[in-house]
Amino acid sequence: MRIAIDAMGGDNAPKEIVLGALKAAREFNDLNITLYGNENEIKKYISNEERVEIIHAEEVILGTDEPVRAVRRKKNSSMVMMAQAVADGYADACVSAGNTGALMAAGLFIVGRIEGIERPALAPTLPTLDGKGFVMLDLGANADAKAEHLLQYAIMGSIYAEKVRGIPNPRVGLLNIGTEEKKGNDLTKEAFKLIKESGVNFVGNVESRDLLQGPADVVVTDGFTGNMVLKTIEGTAMSVFSMLKETLMSSMKTKLAAGLIKSDLMKIKGKMDYSEYGGAALFGLNAPVVKAHGSSNETAFYNAVKQTKEMIKHKVPETIKGTIATK
Amino acid sequence: MRIAIDAMGGDNAPKEIVLGALKAAREFNDLNITLYGNENEIKKYISNEERVEIIHAEEVILGTDEPVRAVRRKKNSSMVMMAQAVADGYADACVSAGNTGALMAAGLFIVGRIEGIERPALAPTLPTLDGKGFVMLDLGANADAKAEHLLQYAIMGSIYAEKVRGIPNPRVGLLNIGTEEKKGNDLTKEAFKLIKESGVNFVGNVESRDLLQGPADVVVTDGFTGNMVLKTIEGTAMSVFSMLKETLMSSMKTKLAAGLIKSDLMKIKGKMDYSEYGGAALFGLNAPVVKAHGSSNETAFYNAVKQTKEMIKHKVPETIKGTIATK
Repeated sequence: MRIAIDAMGGDNAPKEIVLGALKAAREFNDLNITLYGNENEIKKYISNEERVEIIHAEEVILGTDEPVRAVRRKKNSSMVMMAQAVADGYADACVSAGNTGALMAAGLFIVGRIEGIERPALAPTLPTLDGKGFVMLDLGANADAKAEHLLQYAIMGSIYAEKVRGIPNPRVGLLNIGTEEKKGNDLTKEAFKLIKESGVNFVGNVESRDLLQGPADVVVTDGFTGNMVLKTIEGTAMSVFSMLKETLMSSMKTKLAAGLIKSDLMKIKGKMDYSEYGGAALFGLNAPVVKAHGSSNETAFYNAVKQTKEMIKHKVPETIKGTIATK
Repeated sequence: MRIAIDAMGGDNAPKEIVLGALKAAREFNDLNITLYGNENEIKKYISNEERVEIIHAEEVILGTDEPVRAVRRKKNSSMVMMAQAVADGYADACVSAGNTGALMAAGLFIVGRIEGIERPALAPTLPTLDGKGFVMLDLGANADAKAEHLLQYAIMGSIYAEKVRGIPNPRVGLLNIGTEEKKGNDLTKEAFKLIKESGVNFVGNVESRDLLQGPADVVVTDGFTGNMVLKTIEGTAMSVFSMLKETLMSSMKTKLAAGLIKSDLMKIKGKMDYSEYGGAALFGLNAPVVKAHGSSNETAFYNAVKQTKEMIKHKVPETIKGTIATK
């Protein structure tokens, strides 16, 4: 199998991206890698390496670029060339740590949607306190969703959790503002009925306050709500940690305490860090397209490549295609 | 002025409710209070008191009761009688720490909507790190909202922040998944345009990750998203504090540290506690209807009564009525 990689995307590109890709190539001898990007830059971190090739790309899509326009205009960018390699059948999947919106646009316009899937979904694995994590989708590929889209998210998430995360009969929950069946807005009430009858292992509504306890293996929501909740979790955790830091630095006494618990506090912060869980997969496309975290270091990017490899191996897009076709 | 109080609602009723009401009656000599509830129970905490009367109520609406049904059937409950006193013109406003859904139903069916207001909104004051707080609405009175409703929320929130919280020209923000004007779902894009032209001091979109920093004095959102975000903040803060507690109790070393910073940690927790900021007002009704926090103690309930008194004094419903009529 071959994975195409955008070597220029992410805060630590190309160095950490190239190192992470190399680590994956060395570990898996059935894996071929093509790095797209500035050849001179990339060659600083790699010499002749088995099963790794470099294809020079003139342009780079920046984090500040307007996504759709960038994908349409920067045809010679590392990200567009990487996606094109998948569309041409040269590579089986692609991974980028770059501009999320642009990657979604490249996935949609270049790699293409599976027939029958109306809206692709962005699906990261989020942290839980017990370290198991859960898949949540959609986290922002589409702000507006209909109940039928949420049904497709449930099916795609369930397939991914079973095939890639190895969870037999994964529990699927619907994010809602109460656990009772009648709770919620028109969208969740309608989606509840559809998912209940879909054949996935539906555990009903789950509440946002319980997410960190892992109430389900797959949590389904519309992209607006998903993005809102994700940012609320990040913002709240960050605020609490920053208050804590300020408090711990406020006096001799608290500084002494800080010294005693510093390593324990780092562990707590680590538990909330979702880059530990690999990248966010885009579901519903003809091939795996994976977004690694923008701040990926070597290990985080390696994890994203490994996850992409699992999606190829377990034929996730093909299974989604087959399942949707029979609905 | 007279405030009707549901003495039987809340986790600590009737004791803390009665004591909080008494405290308010003693402090403000223009305030008359009528306590509705079980007379024998209430009399345990009160003897003859100036400007405070008790009216016996046979029934109580429980936290587990189905809201609309409870309000329709329990005509002799303390909550329904309290709302009826406002509808009859006997009292100017009412306060309850009981079942939130039932209070919203009592407000809507008994106290009644202001003409022209399509949907009342539940509006608590939420904490910020600097202690100033902000008004957020709707937090769940209506799960589904149209852009016109969000516009009315903006107007009502702005009036309240100015009149009751004493903020001149309050900044109004729209909760969204990005700060740029074009971001969001169909609802927020449409609401952005309407609020921008409404005459309130609109500061544009605000993101959920920044809420604890206080990006605006009034934050507007639909009830589904508002409720979701509130529960996410609570759940995340609770998870972080519980991890912290576990860590601090894990060894001799960390227990020593815990002893040094215990009082500082309590202060941080206090900052996140929104019962400090009084109750949640229901906007858009013919008279002030205020929901005190379910776990209210004497001080929290006193704060809710004081807030209600300010709403009467500054004629918040009348101002909303006048402003909406001219739109």
